[in-house]
Amino acid sequence: MAEVLSPAAVEAAENRIRPHVRRTPGMTVEGAAFGLADPVHLKLELFQHTGSFKARGAFNNLLARPVPKIGVTAASGGNHGAAVAYAAACLGHRARIFVPTVSSPVKIARIRAYGAEVVVAGERYADAALLSEAWARESGALVVHPYDSPYTIAGQGVVAKEWEEDAADGLDTILVAVGGGGLIAGVALWFHGRVRVVAVEPQGSRALHAARAAGRPVDVETGSIAVDSLGAKRVGELAHAIAEDHVDDAVLVPDSAIVEAQKRLWSRLRIAAEPGGATALAALLAGQYRPERGERVGVLVCGGNVDLTSLAALSD
Amino acid sequence: MAEVLSPAAVEAAENRIRPHVRRTPGMTVEGAAFGLADPVHLKLELFQHTGSFKARGAFNNLLARPVPKIGVTAASGGNHGAAVAYAAACLGHRARIFVPTVSSPVKIARIRAYGAEVVVAGERYADAALLSEAWARESGALVVHPYDSPYTIAGQGVVAKEWEEDAADGLDTILVAVGGGGLIAGVALWFHGRVRVVAVEPQGSRALHAARAAGRPVDVETGSIAVDSLGAKRVGELAHAIAEDHVDDAVLVPDSAIVEAQKRLWSRLRIAAEPGGATALAALLAGQYRPERGERVGVLVCGGNVDLTSLAALSD
Repeated sequence: MAEVLSPAAVEAAENRIRPHVRRTPGMTVEGAAFGLADPVHLKLELFQHTGSFKARGAFNNLLARPVPKIGVTAASGGNHGAAVAYAAACLGHRARIFVPTVSSPVKIARIRAYGAEVVVAGERYADAALLSEAWARESGALVVHPYDSPYTIAGQGVVAKEWEEDAADGLDTILVAVGGGGLIAGVALWFHGRVRVVAVEPQGSRALHAARAAGRPVDVETGSIAVDSLGAKRVGELAHAIAEDHVDDAVLVPDSAIVEAQKRLWSRLRIAAEPGGATALAALLAGQYRPERGERVGVLVCGGNVDLTSLAALSD
Repeated sequence: MAEVLSPAAVEAAENRIRPHVRRTPGMTVEGAAFGLADPVHLKLELFQHTGSFKARGAFNNLLARPVPKIGVTAASGGNHGAAVAYAAACLGHRARIFVPTVSSPVKIARIRAYGAEVVVAGERYADAALLSEAWARESGALVVHPYDSPYTIAGQGVVAKEWEEDAADGLDTILVAVGGGGLIAGVALWFHGRVRVVAVEPQGSRALHAARAAGRPVDVETGSIAVDSLGAKRVGELAHAIAEDHVDDAVLVPDSAIVEAQKRLWSRLRIAAEPGGATALAALLAGQYRPERGERVGVLVCGGNVDLTSLAALSD
């Protein structure tokens, strides 16, 4: 594992996935938009294929590992499912995505539209995950884990490499939302020692906080407006191990701050983010992370798969 | 006029407005997203203050010209009104915006929210414009014209300077939507001789086409989904003069292509553009502009003031 999880793994992932993922833009926004003294640099990863960073990890898995003829499988009713379906279709592989019955019909339709076979089964994500693994054992399909895989983590880390290259004024601190921890693990792996990495979780979905308190990943109850993208019940083992060493701080934000961040991104910038995509910014708005004067802060806006009607309802 | 309308005027405008406007991001998008063989470079000016490029021209007017104590005035129920209101508030000036009675309450509320005094009067834009001019004569307020002012044109041109600096792979051709012509005049002024500039108008709102045919600005009937931002009845005299020399081609797009461009920007990129903001892209989708193989094409996405509920209805 040691040789896999290093900045070199992120570079290797970039070499694999570069032809298939978008180099998403960054943008420096005046602090006033967020009630801050200094500008904030936003990395607009919501414009990635399938509307979230998940495409990076999905492509890295499919390009770094041998994919059997039967194809790939994943469990997810959300962004990971869409990303694996999309990557598989681009690379000419079959994909069977197991989706829990609680998932919205819209999200199921999107995964299907990317060309995957969708199996709606199991009450919750954990049930769908078991079904996906059982099917992989039976068929030989390749399982693409949403966060607890070194390929997933290294793939997500590519967003950090891009970000560092493109942030012309430099970055002192970056804020990243956490669900199962794959994104922050990849990002922290890349930035470690150069940029301070702050994890942001909803108060109602705090798997990383719980793992930090317990010293190991433990189950948490989840309930938050961002639960569809950040609602992992526990962080991955790998993500936890990397976070212990490489994540400098972790904060919690209330759902009200997440909603305020979505509203602010729309009203001040015309950026339509999903709740999980706005969660990192929420930590600045709510004052859970307070930058020093002059601190160059970056915020990863990691997902845009928002229902426009609900965003319209938020934004008066 | 000769010394005012030159690339140097754009540079002077940039020096004035740079502290007040955002450097908006550019993004290279794979051609497949738009059914094309080659990538397209999008300039994402919809993330500008007040949701459109209009903030650039508004700031340049207010910074280049002496503003009397009574303040500034403009006529617009849309993006220009919001931009003048915002720029005036930022610079500590009063603003009185005349808004035709046909304008939507939402847009009126937005202009008011930026701190301007709003006068709802006159059935159409032309009536509101007369009222604004009459009030300016009476009060001494400074009129900020939406397009037919060298300061407006030079201010809008700053978007082109930024774009050229940031498009790492270069640009051969750019597509820009046209209403009254202020934006394309500024952009063409900057790019002239280096980049081919293509004007795009809705079939139902073709003031530039009419001017090119007549050899001078003439009135047209307007009716298009993009009429709220591109619905000028005639192009400006200055815009026409610049376009005659500096705009290489002009094409028309049907409303159906504009809607398709809005849908495509949302479904493939999670970018929420207003109809006028998606009009330049529509020319590529509908085949009204067909790039050569290898041609480096840029598209200006110039406005994001879309009603999210209507966008949701488009995108099913």
